[in-house]
Amino acid sequence: MNLDTLYSELTLKNDAKLVLLVLDGLGDIATKEQNYLTPLEAAATPNLDALARNAAQGRMIPVAPGITPGSGPGHLALFGYDPLEFQVGRGVIEALGLGIELKAGDVAARANFCTLDAKGIVTDRRAGRIETEVCEELCKLLASKIKKIGTTEVMIKAGKGHRFVVVFRGKGLEGPLTDADPHHEGAPIPVVRAVNKKSAKAQKAALLIKEFYKQALPLLAKRKPANGFLMRGIAHQPEIPTFQERYQLRPACIAVYPMYKGLAQLVGMNKLEGAQTIAEQFQRYRAEYDNYDYFFIHYKYTDMYGEDGNFAAKKKAIEELDAALPILLEKMPKVLAITGDHSTPCAAKGHSWHPQPVLLTSALSGSDKLQRFTETGANTGSLGVFDAKFLIRLMQANALMFDKFGA
Amino acid sequence: MNLDTLYSELTLKNDAKLVLLVLDGLGDIATKEQNYLTPLEAAATPNLDALARNAAQGRMIPVAPGITPGSGPGHLALFGYDPLEFQVGRGVIEALGLGIELKAGDVAARANFCTLDAKGIVTDRRAGRIETEVCEELCKLLASKIKKIGTTEVMIKAGKGHRFVVVFRGKGLEGPLTDADPHHEGAPIPVVRAVNKKSAKAQKAALLIKEFYKQALPLLAKRKPANGFLMRGIAHQPEIPTFQERYQLRPACIAVYPMYKGLAQLVGMNKLEGAQTIAEQFQRYRAEYDNYDYFFIHYKYTDMYGEDGNFAAKKKAIEELDAALPILLEKMPKVLAITGDHSTPCAAKGHSWHPQPVLLTSALSGSDKLQRFTETGANTGSLGVFDAKFLIRLMQANALMFDKFGA
Repeated sequence: MNLDTLYSELTLKNDAKLVLLVLDGLGDIATKEQNYLTPLEAAATPNLDALARNAAQGRMIPVAPGITPGSGPGHLALFGYDPLEFQVGRGVIEALGLGIELKAGDVAARANFCTLDAKGIVTDRRAGRIETEVCEELCKLLASKIKKIGTTEVMIKAGKGHRFVVVFRGKGLEGPLTDADPHHEGAPIPVVRAVNKKSAKAQKAALLIKEFYKQALPLLAKRKPANGFLMRGIAHQPEIPTFQERYQLRPACIAVYPMYKGLAQLVGMNKLEGAQTIAEQFQRYRAEYDNYDYFFIHYKYTDMYGEDGNFAAKKKAIEELDAALPILLEKMPKVLAITGDHSTPCAAKGHSWHPQPVLLTSALSGSDKLQRFTETGANTGSLGVFDAKFLIRLMQANALMFDKFGA
Repeated sequence: MNLDTLYSELTLKNDAKLVLLVLDGLGDIATKEQNYLTPLEAAATPNLDALARNAAQGRMIPVAPGITPGSGPGHLALFGYDPLEFQVGRGVIEALGLGIELKAGDVAARANFCTLDAKGIVTDRRAGRIETEVCEELCKLLASKIKKIGTTEVMIKAGKGHRFVVVFRGKGLEGPLTDADPHHEGAPIPVVRAVNKKSAKAQKAALLIKEFYKQALPLLAKRKPANGFLMRGIAHQPEIPTFQERYQLRPACIAVYPMYKGLAQLVGMNKLEGAQTIAEQFQRYRAEYDNYDYFFIHYKYTDMYGEDGNFAAKKKAIEELDAALPILLEKMPKVLAITGDHSTPCAAKGHSWHPQPVLLTSALSGSDKLQRFTETGANTGSLGVFDAKFLIRLMQANALMFDKFGA
């Protein structure tokens, strides 16, 4: 029997409130250079410590042992969607990251400007890393000239530096397509093709992109150095069963950065906009407490400083979140889970595969008798090491949302 | 490759004795109210402590993360049967609980008396919760009048209060059927139907139950308030590969309560009857030591007091078992596993999803260097957190019953 079907059949609706607080990239590793402490262990966290005394802890594998996830799979797992079953293409993630509100079926591509020689050979895959302002101007130019191809709407949005995103919104389109990128200099831009040759929808999308190149390249012909562009990760936004239908919970997202709002939107969460600081995010949760059952609150800075390899700043970001935590705790939800979407160890300066620590507290979480919330403590917690996609199920169980299985 | 097939192919028969001692609902959670101790942690358990020093510990997930199992799935997992693959209907479990010796293919239903108005509308789903004596009298009446329908034998047995069980034993029958229960008052009793409409056997069972109603309702017509009855969880006892063929072990069950004897019988265990106390159960094990390879010894009281939310009584039940343990240990089996079929936290007053602690001792279990057997200690044990269905495989491995896999 399919496990999701079982969970679904056992689900009981009630009025419990569940909160998932994500410190992006929270997990870290203890190294000699930092006196064998992780940022979470080195940080002063009186409020997290107080929670730990009445909480269960464990560690979560975001995708599979050894797999380093991007933000997409990391968050999909936290939302209870198997990241191997629900794959979201890079173009889609990139579009979400730029705040584009995608609809199911939209085909999105990561793109970037490049330099072509007279024969159309790619001589610089990043067009000399043009400034963001130049990129914005070029995107504006393309967007003003190419609004539709046939009945398909075309959206173009600039990112940072030489990067941008193109979205095609029309009927009967589908990804994935092969890249319009030779992946090395000295070769022309390949024509994109449907990865699944039997998909008529993907064939149609491939023709559309061929036509897009035909119209766009002449517009850039006289530009230097950005007289061409490459497209990668061309994929459509898949149909994903909504969070609400899957879990019988009305979900809300309180995030600051577009990528996380986009990922929440992907599963049908309502976006509560406006909060800028974590204190404001917690206040927003309190203000909206009655209107939703599940709150996803996203905190970016732990990941950002982990990526920088800045141990002191990552530690401080944790301390700042801890200091704001009482605002949330004044309106304690029935179930509170605090974790990361993956680890971003300072020593790695990037995402990693290390299971992230998780703390779960409710009237029935029990206590693991740990005095703090740390990676090392979580290793000994009652939740063990488990797949991140089960976190929502443990949260639902703690909210008494499951009937007994069998007599 | 199917894992069960692999285990089966590697199985070596030998003369090892294996004992599974189940303290029903053993697992619990530490809460502030009980000074952060579970009943197992609060109990004085010198004999379990002595075992712990030379044992491996861990925690087991009975079905899946967050799923609270009934006794059926809980025990099937302990016996090594995936509870999602081998689902046993509620009617079957209820019949087993009343001590009815089911055969494969028997169709069983949970039933209870209800009150109907003149138009056949259910006005009280529990017939005013009639006394057990009244229920017994009504069941006797029905049983005396309806012994067979066609060639199908009908068995009716009273439970507690308004509850009873009906079993149909005949050829070519199968469940599951929809409920003969509107699940709320103000509606008539629905006619049952085959859940799988393509099953001729289930169609036949549905007709049989329709005929049962036709014969039984007139017999109750003048009774007040119990002039009708509802039937739910109508299912057949599935074919389950026997314990002996699966594991090459001659199994015996030493349980006091009918439900657990029934579950053991479901997988073909021999029932050793007569023992009433845990001391008598352990004595019985010693007396039968030579006649079997695997003993399932079931102790009910930990679950019973957990369901009552009676911490002191659950703790005392553990201490009483511990005090009797030397009787078992005098004839030490090659492998001894001590665990629960699930957790029944006093704070939850019912079964729960929390992984239950398990202790496994043998000459090759190794020592986790734990001084006691507790939930908190088990979190750090060498067995980790694992699916309960693998316990029998670990027991077999410790009994040296598996050949090496590959060269």
